[in-house]
Parts: sequence; structure tokens; C-alpha cells
Amino acid sequence: MLNNPNYFTGNPLDRASDKRKDETFVATQLAHEEARMAVFWRGQPLMTTPIEDATESFVLWLHPDSVSQFKGAGTPLFLGLKDATPYFALDVSASAPEAEIAPFSEMGVYGQLREFGLILPRDELAILGQAAWLIDWHRRNRFCPRTGAPTKIGDGGAKRVEPKAERDYFPRIDPVAIVLPTHDDHCLLGRSPHFPPAMYSALAGFMEPGESLEECAAREIFEEAGVVLSDISYQFSQPWPFPASLMVGFLATAQGKEITLDKEELEDARWVTRGEVQALLKGERRDDLWLPPKFAIARQLLEVWAGG
Amino acid sequence: MLNNPNYFTGNPLDRASDKRKDETFVATQLAHEEARMAVFWRGQPLMTTPIEDATESFVLWLHPDSVSQFKGAGTPLFLGLKDATPYFALDVSASAPEAEIAPFSEMGVYGQLREFGLILPRDELAILGQAAWLIDWHRRNRFCPRTGAPTKIGDGGAKRVEPKAERDYFPRIDPVAIVLPTHDDHCLLGRSPHFPPAMYSALAGFMEPGESLEECAAREIFEEAGVVLSDISYQFSQPWPFPASLMVGFLATAQGKEITLDKEELEDARWVTRGEVQALLKGERRDDLWLPPKFAIARQLLEVWAGG
Repeated sequence: MLNNPNYFTGNPLDRASDKRKDETFVATQLAHEEARMAVFWRGQPLMTTPIEDATESFVLWLHPDSVSQFKGAGTPLFLGLKDATPYFALDVSASAPEAEIAPFSEMGVYGQLREFGLILPRDELAILGQAAWLIDWHRRNRFCPRTGAPTKIGDGGAKRVEPKAERDYFPRIDPVAIVLPTHDDHCLLGRSPHFPPAMYSALAGFMEPGESLEECAAREIFEEAGVVLSDISYQFSQPWPFPASLMVGFLATAQGKEITLDKEELEDARWVTRGEVQALLKGERRDDLWLPPKFAIARQLLEVWAGG
Repeated sequence: MLNNPNYFTGNPLDRASDKRKDETFVATQLAHEEARMAVFWRGQPLMTTPIEDATESFVLWLHPDSVSQFKGAGTPLFLGLKDATPYFALDVSASAPEAEIAPFSEMGVYGQLREFGLILPRDELAILGQAAWLIDWHRRNRFCPRTGAPTKIGDGGAKRVEPKAERDYFPRIDPVAIVLPTHDDHCLLGRSPHFPPAMYSALAGFMEPGESLEECAAREIFEEAGVVLSDISYQFSQPWPFPASLMVGFLATAQGKEITLDKEELEDARWVTRGEVQALLKGERRDDLWLPPKFAIARQLLEVWAGG
């Protein structure tokens, strides 16, 4: 229905946001005989070892019972329901921070979402994205930013609570505008110093307080490349759990092609023709120009502009 | 250029995000003879007292020098530059929490942005929105959420820093999907229990980790009204400093008109015809149906749908 090509979308779970407030409901779901738990170790989910050609992997779902025996495991985070099956995530790294061997690693492999994302089923990847986001947020939000007092998990993991003041905190979602400016038959791509060699992508930046999405898009492109946008057109968004971004993608018309580079942010920026982009999207290999992987919303913006 | 009808957009300031990292730059701007400072007391900005018919008010800009004499004033927050004129905001409430009389109140009036928003110049309102957002965020983020250690202002107010771990924190921006579902010639409006009597508005909800904007829109409308959306179309966004929301507005097509109300969230929801909306937008007064003020993105969604 939603027609969104981006990885990490299409999460099939019903978050049951009214029910998860009830501790009894969450406990019942945890004891459900079909309950499925994704296990994370130091930010990486447990998956099946990819076979032979490494083109496919799956989440290695455990039952909560098989994890509860694990000494010192943290609080399971309720992710939602698929039909009647409850889904959870658990971070097992905090329980044995010194251990070099991750629990359950005899059963599969812990891997980076960035690496496994392209070979996992899309719906499982979306669930892992949600799980990774929540786990990271809980890890980095153990204290109340207002008073420094400890906080604890609430609503099955959907929030944290400072119990004394009964103050609720919800996971951060940091909006980012990512923009593909175009001029005649060219689009503007740039590269950060930390990109892989020859990779160029759409320019992006975090929103600041008091901006609309389009104002952020215009500011970022002007700050980073000195290019003024005259028309900014929303395309789609992507949840991006590295660790907590909402990527909002735009195509835009540039008023001119002159580039004034912000050398603190970018190593280079250049105009690339539609024909060059089409060839690269079809698989052409060039030493001087790589596009981002399908995983990234920037690639999807290029697909839209270059006509897929 | 950006063609966004929403209040709080159109901020004319250049945030100078590269320069504000330099403490000397910020100090120089603060000493600039034309520098303008917006002063806030308990969340309310200092403005000129509206005259007679109360149709117009302006920000009462002070020079930083006239505020620095004020005992115990906090750190001025750099907002940006308009041409060469630097703009700042200062919260004076923390300096004298017990005082019942706000400093500088003999010069003007402290008022709610929600009340004065409609009678302030649009560009001044946008600057105050940015300022209110930053002031509130600094007030509620004095401690590191990871360790509970104190944090301090950095980059002229654009971030906070936990100095020991050199960890940066940036202001929260919480994305919200707000949706006007339509079916044939009707649109769906609902009312929260805390709305003024007879007011109905578009339904909205905060995003959760791992959703796209449209997935959030679909989830919220289904959760609150039991209505399934088949087509969801982005319109525009609005920064909403109460305290830190990014409202992202959508029109959507509903698959059917049957409503299943979430009575915890909504007091009522109903389908309203385009003709009724048009009459109300033109100024008709009804006892049973009020639309939100122009200030709200919901009103702008109704304007788009009903053909303004």
C-alpha cells in the first residue's frame, strides 16, 4: 500500500500501543509458546550463518524461555504482534560485558545490520531495525536528562520513566533531510571524507529547531555546496537505525551549478549526468564513481530521478 | 520560495552553523552594537504591549548589554544572523525563580506564543519559535542521559556537551504525522478531551522507532479511529515549539467511513463534508463544530483540501 522502496520500512508488527502499557499483557506475551525473541550482542543481532554464496540469512529467533536462563539478561523489549505471535528483543551484551564469547554464538552469527541488511528478508530487517533502535536508546538513556536521576523501562520498552517525578521519556527520532539537487540533466552528489573510496551520495543534514523539512534541505545544500534550491519535492522517508535517524528524501531543482564546497563537511561534490547515473544503476563499474548501496535512501532517490 | 503556509516557518536567520562553534565569534556577536536579544520569562517571550484593538504586537528586542547587568542571567543562546545583525535569546526565569515580578516587565508584556502567534510578524514568530524551543531544551537537558553527569552549553547554544566524555547532545526534534483522511467529499476530524468545546482537528501522533512517516500516519489513523488509509500524500511540515515537535502533514484517502473510536485518545471523531469545511473556513460560526486556528497545520491541511 505505502509503496516505499526503502529498506527498514514494511515492518509487519502491530505495536499494540494501547495494550503494552499493561504489565500483565507484556508478561503474558513473554510466556506465549510461539513468542519470538531477537538477541543482540554489542549492537549486532543473532542471525543464521549465511550458507555458500552468502545471499541469504534469517533472524535466529529464540523463545524467551531459552534466554531467561541466561544469567543477568536484561529486560526483554516488546516489539509488537504479528497475527497473535509476540515479538521481543533482548540485549545480552550488558549482562557479561567482559566476556569475549557471545552467548548463543554456537547457534548462528552476530553481524552488522549494514552488512546483513541486503541478504535478510525485508520484513525481518525492518523488525531488527526497530529492535536495534530501541536497544541502543535504552542503553544511552539510563538517566533523566533533567535531573540526572536513574530511569527505568516502561510500557514493555516503549518508554523510560523517572519514577520519582513520574516523568516519561520516549525514544529519540532525529529527522534528517537528504536531498538530490538536479539541474538540467545533472544531479549533485558529494562525498564525506569517511566514505569508501570513489563513493558519492546525496547530501544530507540533521534538522535544527524551528525549521520545516524543506528549509532544512535548502540550508544544508547551501551550507555544504553553496547551491541554492528553487524547488524542493518530498519523495519518501526511511527509518535509519544508526542509531536513530529518520531520513526524509527530497528531489530539488538547483538555481545554478556553481559549487562552493564546505571543506569541513565534504571532500568533494560534483554534477553527474543522468546517463552516468543510469549506467551505474545498471551495474557499470567505475573507478572514480560509486553510488551508495540499495540499502540507502540516496540510492532510491537516484532510482527515482534516473527513471529506475 | 518554499511556499509553506505554516506559522513558525520562514525564519529569516542564517544559523551560521560553522561559525557558532567558535567561542570568539559568539562573544564578538554578543558585543555587536546592533545585537538583538529576545528575553523569555517562564517560557514566555517579552513583547510590546498590543495597542487598542490588539491586532499587532512585536518582539521587544533588547541589547545584550542591557541584560548582562541583570544579576544571574543565564547564558545567551545564539540564534543566527540577519544580514550582519546577530540575534540571541535569553531565559531570565532561572535567575530569580522566586520573584513574582518578571524583569523588564515595565517595558512590555510576557505572553504565550499560542496567544500572540497570530498578531506577531511572521518572521519574528519564527525566530521566537526557534528561541523557545532552544530555551526549553536546555532547561530540560542539564544532565547526560547516559551517565547522569552534568552537561554544559556548547556552540553558542546549538548543543550541550558532557565535558568529561566529550559527548555531544543536540536538541530533540520529535516528528509527528498529522493526517486529514478523506472519503468522497468528506474528511475525518476528531477531538481530544482537552480541546476547547466543539473544536475538531486532524488526527495526529508521534512517530515510533522503525516507521516511515506514512507508516506512522496509517498506524495512528487506524489506532485512533479504526480507519484504513489507502493513499497517503505529503503536503508540508511545521516546526511546533510546544515543546519540540515537527508536524508533518498528510492528506490521505480512507478505504471506508466506519469509525471505531479509541476512547482513551479521542472523545469523538466524525466525517465532515467539504461544503461544511468551506463555510467554516470562510467564517461561519457553529456551536457544534469549530476548526483549529490558522496557527495550526491542521487548519492548513483543511485549506488545501477544501480549496482555500
